Amino acid sequence: MRISKLDPWGSTSISDYGKLIEEFGIEPFTEELVKQIPRPNKFMRRGVNFGHRGFDVILDAILNRKSFAVMSGIKPTGAFHLGSLMTASEIVYYQKEHGAMAFYGIADIESLMDNQLPYDEALENAIDNTADILALGFDPNPKKGYIWRQSTEKRVTDIAFLAGSKVTTNQMLAIYGERITFGLYMSALVQIGDILLPETEDFGGPKPVVVPVGADQDPHLRVTREVARKLKNQFGFIEPSATYHKIMPGIDGSEKMSKRNPMSYFDLSEDFEDIKNKLMNAFTGGRVTAEEQRRLGGQPEICMLYMLAMYLFVEEDNIMEQVIYKECVNGEILCGPCKVRVTKFVLDWIKEHRRKKEKQIDIARKILEAE
Amino acid sequence: MRISKLDPWGSTSISDYGKLIEEFGIEPFTEELVKQIPRPNKFMRRGVNFGHRGFDVILDAILNRKSFAVMSGIKPTGAFHLGSLMTASEIVYYQKEHGAMAFYGIADIESLMDNQLPYDEALENAIDNTADILALGFDPNPKKGYIWRQSTEKRVTDIAFLAGSKVTTNQMLAIYGERITFGLYMSALVQIGDILLPETEDFGGPKPVVVPVGADQDPHLRVTREVARKLKNQFGFIEPSATYHKIMPGIDGSEKMSKRNPMSYFDLSEDFEDIKNKLMNAFTGGRVTAEEQRRLGGQPEICMLYMLAMYLFVEEDNIMEQVIYKECVNGEILCGPCKVRVTKFVLDWIKEHRRKKEKQIDIARKILEAE
Repeated sequence: MRISKLDPWGSTSISDYGKLIEEFGIEPFTEELVKQIPRPNKFMRRGVNFGHRGFDVILDAILNRKSFAVMSGIKPTGAFHLGSLMTASEIVYYQKEHGAMAFYGIADIESLMDNQLPYDEALENAIDNTADILALGFDPNPKKGYIWRQSTEKRVTDIAFLAGSKVTTNQMLAIYGERITFGLYMSALVQIGDILLPETEDFGGPKPVVVPVGADQDPHLRVTREVARKLKNQFGFIEPSATYHKIMPGIDGSEKMSKRNPMSYFDLSEDFEDIKNKLMNAFTGGRVTAEEQRRLGGQPEICMLYMLAMYLFVEEDNIMEQVIYKECVNGEILCGPCKVRVTKFVLDWIKEHRRKKEKQIDIARKILEAE
Repeated sequence: MRISKLDPWGSTSISDYGKLIEEFGIEPFTEELVKQIPRPNKFMRRGVNFGHRGFDVILDAILNRKSFAVMSGIKPTGAFHLGSLMTASEIVYYQKEHGAMAFYGIADIESLMDNQLPYDEALENAIDNTADILALGFDPNPKKGYIWRQSTEKRVTDIAFLAGSKVTTNQMLAIYGERITFGLYMSALVQIGDILLPETEDFGGPKPVVVPVGADQDPHLRVTREVARKLKNQFGFIEPSATYHKIMPGIDGSEKMSKRNPMSYFDLSEDFEDIKNKLMNAFTGGRVTAEEQRRLGGQPEICMLYMLAMYLFVEEDNIMEQVIYKECVNGEILCGPCKVRVTKFVLDWIKEHRRKKEKQIDIARKILEAE
């Protein structure tokens, strides 16, 4: 499938990351690069991070213990889904493993523009989302981490207006396409404010910043890097770097996860029975007959349960390689029992996460309401 | 000349106000209306206010002593010119004569977008502009008046984002035309925030607001009235009203006052000698010969000195009618001595204004830096 335009507001499904690298100039996240990173996370180790822009600056900061930041965000339209979980766990990784100052922006101006969600409703979702990232290990100590809502963080909207003075109307239309609601373009500029916030004086001034996001967010990064260049004279901004992770297709085998198709995804707040049911009905790489599967082995590269385990729910490479992968391709296990096994990994992980999250709700509320 | 599009960012010159009323649905500011207004100002008395939108709501507030507000603003790109003076004196009129809560917005986001003027440079102009409106009699007592900069007034930019969620991209392009700098559209939405600020809870909630502006600002008012309707459910906003004053052409007879043509205008900070020189070279309604002028009389309706006196520098109707107008049309005075006479009115007025303004500079600085 040819990707002619990346759409940060949701209609893109991506199936050819090579094309993305070719057409948009995203640099490949190579094995050689991964080898140089101390304690690489599982996205790096397992090729889920397929591309980047300017990661050399971050690698240099990591290797030479220079100050740097990690920044990403969430649109607070509901509970954490698997995409939010990927990004949030990357933020926590850079904060914990490499001492990066961690920034997490709640994009409630975007959810106003894109979903007509009033700020007060967005706040309730934001508190829930914040409890999730805290449960993942995000350290909100003001010296180490900062979480904000776009609607209450004036420093972010200030940058959005400065960005607006540096981009042309043609650029906005070319990058973001034709949008009905005018405010969507504004929210794109607010996102530039989010990304550049870690480099403002209040947070210690210009520094390398890595933005780990899904591949669909690349348009935001491209325009942010250009705006950073244009504001360099005034603020000394360093162009933010980005890493891109692959985007999971629908677990039912559909092209993408979508709220309109509940069997295509699950979120972290769903009933266990529902999650279990969805996983039992997930798309796998099984063969037509049991006999054939024992003979040829399964196809983990197209199996959604394998992908869930690899992307999110199984930390140990040994288990991934020696058990889940090996038994599948050798035909030693059929999809039925494998589903049961991976489902247990998923549900155990979520159970443990919910246990941790429970204690974080009040803290999350305090963080967001104190702003 | 046919007006096909009003341009709030400056390329419009207007010579046919009837067309404006026809094409854009601006209501005429009739003599019957003026008769109902207690203590009408000279713009009302002299037909300088040619049109309005929704002034009936304001008249009702005035006549029935209901709470209402007056709001307008200035783009802080330099000293007060004659246009700024017109608007500012209208604000002071409603505050003084009718007890309106008075709001004056310094449009430094607009001067960033339209003139690439950094906020700190805009602030110096803003202090000077604020001293001007204080010298005109603006009462900055917080119960009676409020002056702010767009860049520091979050309540204004908050409304700008809400407005962005309520307008379509097509509307913005249709109303404001094709602009190179994307931020100009954003500054249009910020202006909506300025206009609706008096109706927010912090200022006592929804109320009638009159916005006295030049005819070229009508696009801002139209879109603001539409956004106010769309936000009515959420905030109870009442559609703001507007009055439109005529826009003076260049005093040298050119189509419009323009910084690119210094003989076409003067500002309140210029050397007296320069102002005098410009007035002596101003375009008048004189006849070809002195004999002809004595016989036919002059033509005040095309004379720029007459317009300056009528719009701004001669308060007494008697002097305007019985002296300046009458002696001109009766051929009793030629343009030379009349210029000397009107120039004296202008310079005396400015002298007195500067005397008052001097005392206001420190107060102005305090008001704007305290924000």
